[in-house]
Amino acid sequence: MNRQWLYAKQPQGKIGPDTFQWTETAIPEPRDGEALVRTRMLSLDPANRAWMMGKTYRDALEPGQVMSGFAIGEVVDSKTGGLKAGDIVEGDWGWQDYAAMPARRLTRRTTKAPLELLIGPLSVTGLTAYFGLLNIGQPKPGDTVLVSAAAGAVGTMVGQIAKLAGCRVVGTAGGQDKCDWLVRKLGFDAAVDYKAGGVFRALRAACPDGIDVYFDNTGGPVLEAALSLMNLRGRIVCCGNVSQYDVEKPAPGPMAVPGLVVTKRLRMEGFIVMDFYDQRAEAEAKLARWVEEGKIKAIVDVVDGLDKAPQALIGLFEGRNKGKMAVRV
Amino acid sequence: MNRQWLYAKQPQGKIGPDTFQWTETAIPEPRDGEALVRTRMLSLDPANRAWMMGKTYRDALEPGQVMSGFAIGEVVDSKTGGLKAGDIVEGDWGWQDYAAMPARRLTRRTTKAPLELLIGPLSVTGLTAYFGLLNIGQPKPGDTVLVSAAAGAVGTMVGQIAKLAGCRVVGTAGGQDKCDWLVRKLGFDAAVDYKAGGVFRALRAACPDGIDVYFDNTGGPVLEAALSLMNLRGRIVCCGNVSQYDVEKPAPGPMAVPGLVVTKRLRMEGFIVMDFYDQRAEAEAKLARWVEEGKIKAIVDVVDGLDKAPQALIGLFEGRNKGKMAVRV
Repeated sequence: MNRQWLYAKQPQGKIGPDTFQWTETAIPEPRDGEALVRTRMLSLDPANRAWMMGKTYRDALEPGQVMSGFAIGEVVDSKTGGLKAGDIVEGDWGWQDYAAMPARRLTRRTTKAPLELLIGPLSVTGLTAYFGLLNIGQPKPGDTVLVSAAAGAVGTMVGQIAKLAGCRVVGTAGGQDKCDWLVRKLGFDAAVDYKAGGVFRALRAACPDGIDVYFDNTGGPVLEAALSLMNLRGRIVCCGNVSQYDVEKPAPGPMAVPGLVVTKRLRMEGFIVMDFYDQRAEAEAKLARWVEEGKIKAIVDVVDGLDKAPQALIGLFEGRNKGKMAVRV
Repeated sequence: MNRQWLYAKQPQGKIGPDTFQWTETAIPEPRDGEALVRTRMLSLDPANRAWMMGKTYRDALEPGQVMSGFAIGEVVDSKTGGLKAGDIVEGDWGWQDYAAMPARRLTRRTTKAPLELLIGPLSVTGLTAYFGLLNIGQPKPGDTVLVSAAAGAVGTMVGQIAKLAGCRVVGTAGGQDKCDWLVRKLGFDAAVDYKAGGVFRALRAACPDGIDVYFDNTGGPVLEAALSLMNLRGRIVCCGNVSQYDVEKPAPGPMAVPGLVVTKRLRMEGFIVMDFYDQRAEAEAKLARWVEEGKIKAIVDVVDGLDKAPQALIGLFEGRNKGKMAVRV
């Protein structure tokens, strides 16, 4: 049998168990040009929720379809020349045990590393942090880099890469526990609990020389505060808007746009990790080396069992995870 | 006597006659290293109002000081080697007949052109349009360029430079009169009256291929609509926020920031004309040639008499001018 989670209906406000529906169906047969993939690990990402809101960089999810999501799996049957049984592949085939996928929608992974690393730190998550920070943020040694959702999948990587680039690194996270963890375990110079209130004052104290690069995963009040603290010609890497995904009605945008963008000559720039996939091989090799040498700690929060996927995604929006949230299938 | 307008008090809401105070004082004596300048033409700019709001790229205006403003004048006495009586200079010495200015705060103008052109189209205004559009917006032939406050000092220049760059050009302005004028007199492909309501629908109709470059002079509802209509990897040139300068309480920022900035991979970037003054000579020569050859119409709205300066600035925020607003002294 092929166990599946369907996307059942668009949430009004927060996602809940009834956003998804469990079903079981026959294992599909691959057609010519396709491979049958068995899921080994699912990636849970804030973007999963954003796809429910409407068209983004991809079409909106439609109720009734298999819930979309990035995954790692093993080819069990192949009718395409480029892939054979046993190959490890990644792609977006969603929350199910098996999928018959056209070869062009699969990427074969050759980097030797545990699946826990291949699902995040050495794939979408790590590459998002790497390309966003280095290609768009362009930090210089001595710069102050702020990253929001710093204890999350992308944030943990951004902070550590920024440290390797010689920057002073400050993060925001929900709760004092996570903040302490960022400083003690990941080497952040400071961390601010955005749930404690007074986020502007706390960030001002944590960034006495202002902010040169803000890696924005959240939007919302942290973006607003960061705009006020940015230095002349600062760069804001627009990566996500997670504070506004799991809500009934998105909040107004930052007042400081465009006023402070003009007066401080800021650059705000959005990106999607795929924009830089022509540089993927080099970036992935570098990330793998950093992880192997212990220069970067790859933080993965693995939940066991496809049946747990909805609760895990709900937990992600409640801030329960540290690092990459993944489901082992 | 030296007639002066002082900045009298910070406006609550719109500027009015009582924002300024008339005074007469002695003509100052230039000290060593200074030149005594006689004002010939004052530039009135939306930025004049922004300086009243607090610190921007310069310190906030302080009640009691001479009202600041960019000006063109003639040296009448000089105690600095680089300047002599009769030289035409520009600088920010504000709303007064005479000023004793340190040489480093004056720029000698050598371009042969009437003062009406030197005050705007061939100075701050024209250069703002030129550098913002070409250096930050980076339009390609065939791109759709939208410019807000298109009938204003910067907007009229942006639109015409964009046409020379081979773009389809759309502007927003207040009132159907101005819109017709933009199309008939300045060669815009379309213009949208932002005061008529339904600005998003009107812009969508005017930009059937979406927007590649948005030159933002206004912020506010036009920025919000433009964000929704931007094409993938579009550029937003953040030049001004005039919709939010002459108000009691600025409106919330655009909802689409950062959401659409991420999904469409937009770049929003602020600048100040001085950032590019290392390229000023070349740009000014090019603008002067375009104006001389009739490829660009330099639109200047000149009011006679220093006493009229407050009414002229109030009129600018009521949208009474077309092109560059200046006061002949």
